[in-house]
Amino acid sequence: MSVTVDPAVYRQRIARVRAAMFEQDVDVLLLSVGHDLPYLIGYEAMPLERLTMLVLPREGTPTLVLPRLEAPRVRRMPDLFDVHPWNETDDAVAIVATLASKASVAAIGDQTWGRFVVELLPAMPDTQFRRAVEVVGPLRSRKDPAEIEALRAAGAAVDRIAGALQRGEIPLVGRTEAQVSADLSARILAEGHDVVNFAIVAAGENAASPHHHAGSRVIRAGELVLCDFGGTMNGYCSDITRCVYLGTPTGEIAEAYEVLHTAQQAAVAAAIVGTPCEVVDAVARRIIAEAGLGEFFVHRTGHGIGLEAHEEPYIVSGNRLALSAGHAFSIEPGIYLPGQWGMRLEDIVVATQQGPDPMNCADHRLVALDV
Amino acid sequence: MSVTVDPAVYRQRIARVRAAMFEQDVDVLLLSVGHDLPYLIGYEAMPLERLTMLVLPREGTPTLVLPRLEAPRVRRMPDLFDVHPWNETDDAVAIVATLASKASVAAIGDQTWGRFVVELLPAMPDTQFRRAVEVVGPLRSRKDPAEIEALRAAGAAVDRIAGALQRGEIPLVGRTEAQVSADLSARILAEGHDVVNFAIVAAGENAASPHHHAGSRVIRAGELVLCDFGGTMNGYCSDITRCVYLGTPTGEIAEAYEVLHTAQQAAVAAAIVGTPCEVVDAVARRIIAEAGLGEFFVHRTGHGIGLEAHEEPYIVSGNRLALSAGHAFSIEPGIYLPGQWGMRLEDIVVATQQGPDPMNCADHRLVALDV
Repeated sequence: MSVTVDPAVYRQRIARVRAAMFEQDVDVLLLSVGHDLPYLIGYEAMPLERLTMLVLPREGTPTLVLPRLEAPRVRRMPDLFDVHPWNETDDAVAIVATLASKASVAAIGDQTWGRFVVELLPAMPDTQFRRAVEVVGPLRSRKDPAEIEALRAAGAAVDRIAGALQRGEIPLVGRTEAQVSADLSARILAEGHDVVNFAIVAAGENAASPHHHAGSRVIRAGELVLCDFGGTMNGYCSDITRCVYLGTPTGEIAEAYEVLHTAQQAAVAAAIVGTPCEVVDAVARRIIAEAGLGEFFVHRTGHGIGLEAHEEPYIVSGNRLALSAGHAFSIEPGIYLPGQWGMRLEDIVVATQQGPDPMNCADHRLVALDV
Repeated sequence: MSVTVDPAVYRQRIARVRAAMFEQDVDVLLLSVGHDLPYLIGYEAMPLERLTMLVLPREGTPTLVLPRLEAPRVRRMPDLFDVHPWNETDDAVAIVATLASKASVAAIGDQTWGRFVVELLPAMPDTQFRRAVEVVGPLRSRKDPAEIEALRAAGAAVDRIAGALQRGEIPLVGRTEAQVSADLSARILAEGHDVVNFAIVAAGENAASPHHHAGSRVIRAGELVLCDFGGTMNGYCSDITRCVYLGTPTGEIAEAYEVLHTAQQAAVAAAIVGTPCEVVDAVARRIIAEAGLGEFFVHRTGHGIGLEAHEEPYIVSGNRLALSAGHAFSIEPGIYLPGQWGMRLEDIVVATQQGPDPMNCADHRLVALDV
């Protein structure tokens, strides 16, 4: 799924990771399922019960331990890492523990299956375990120009789908949420993504559930429909949310959307280099709270995005991290009235020295569709 | 995605799990991403950075800890479990650690994100962690009649697709593996699955990589094409592998396939209640080895299947577990000549008191297609 990257890029990333390991007193990285592994060596572990794990010590050659039957999938770069394929009756955890046996501190990937952590504990009794995201996350979160262009291309693709939605080219009334979700998914692929990550379609009261799973509910006139969708294109993720109204919005909904729109645009404008993440969150939150709707904005303002749909930095209260150039993240406040309706407005934004650089520019208004 | 199950079924499963916890001296189960959670309470955790975790003590009411914005997704069954939604600025790990604080032994789900295990370790310093699969796995692996019927329906659906492939109704020559994979995926959904789990299409030398990812390689006449595909229907998985030959197979390939076919059928026949899993594996392996091809059969003979595509019991050397009635698993030997070709033949089989009950019956021969 990922693009072919010049080995020099991986070499540079590994060098930067090692510098961070040195600073943080981490002796070895243990990377499995998740995106730290493809970020560093271009290989993505299959999320299966057979262990794949890169053992990356502070010095010396890293070793990719993986099932022999998956070894043909690896793009070999012998200058960068060794490959240690294991057979079906080998003890893969023991192989990793032996390779990492001298580590006082091991940092393990966030999405590594818990079973392997539980199995490594007794095999590495003198090792302290930490999260690898502390080492790799800050590097991954600051995108280089090629990564930003990949995010921009993915963003432009979902913008085109949002435009079709807003022009009424995707039939809604009388269809189920699941049917519309399937339409959006097909368009995500047709626009050049390699995979669909999600295609939330939530109508009426269902939209009050922020992570609603599109179901058999039929969409009707007089409803607000929330669509939140994205995929992965050349390794990088898109993510956009737009709402449309089927008919003429009620005064309550039109007014709430104005608040949401103002809050979202203000938070985007606040996303400048040096501003703490929690301040960006507070900007959106204050505007919604001042309109008396604060209790209905039940989630953080945004999440980082890149190789993963959700990654650092999180735009959330308590996160004092200052935005750096290259940070890429969503700005997506929402207002959810339980049992009635929900609305969210989301763009991906990159912080740059020249100010916030939005990856999405589809119409931000609540488009009213004829029904 | 999962079917609506009678709460009485969940109550019974929880009671059986608790009996196993008592036998194994496990004080609390901690279940997150993965299928133990839907098996016990019908709720599937989203695989995201916000923690969802069921804290299931040996006695007393279980508590589902989950992000407030995902709480509307839960089907409430107050007699079975409490719900503890957490807010964006709460410490979800601390909430779980408090609920489980008295546990000497905690058993945690295999697919729980490693970060949560790493974070729980210091929060529960006096607790020993084990794998929840030791408790829940044996129960999940023995399917009840309703589960077997769900597996049969999913199996019949992929059988129909295999039949279409074998009748030449899915164009192959001149198309890329990825295009054929997309066709298979569309058919998996059209046949009633809720999601596609995988659709491996591997032509020629690519088939020698058992977990090959379908790519841009164009399929040509005179090639063997391996298709391994499955999805999830009403919560239960399908998984089938068939190979077709584009033209008249070479003598080498025809002979190797005869060995494979014989080995697969013998292993299916050996899958009777009471037989150890490793013996079923050995049956297939011996036949392939006696034909001089043993070194090219590089993986285990099979894996359990149910809510998950891969689960217990594993049909692998070293697994002395005796098959029980209701065990459902794949029988899928393969032969892989690096750089040349690969072949695999796979059915799902359920062990019953009346003998092996195959969930797949698509033609097991190497079908030669006109080109």
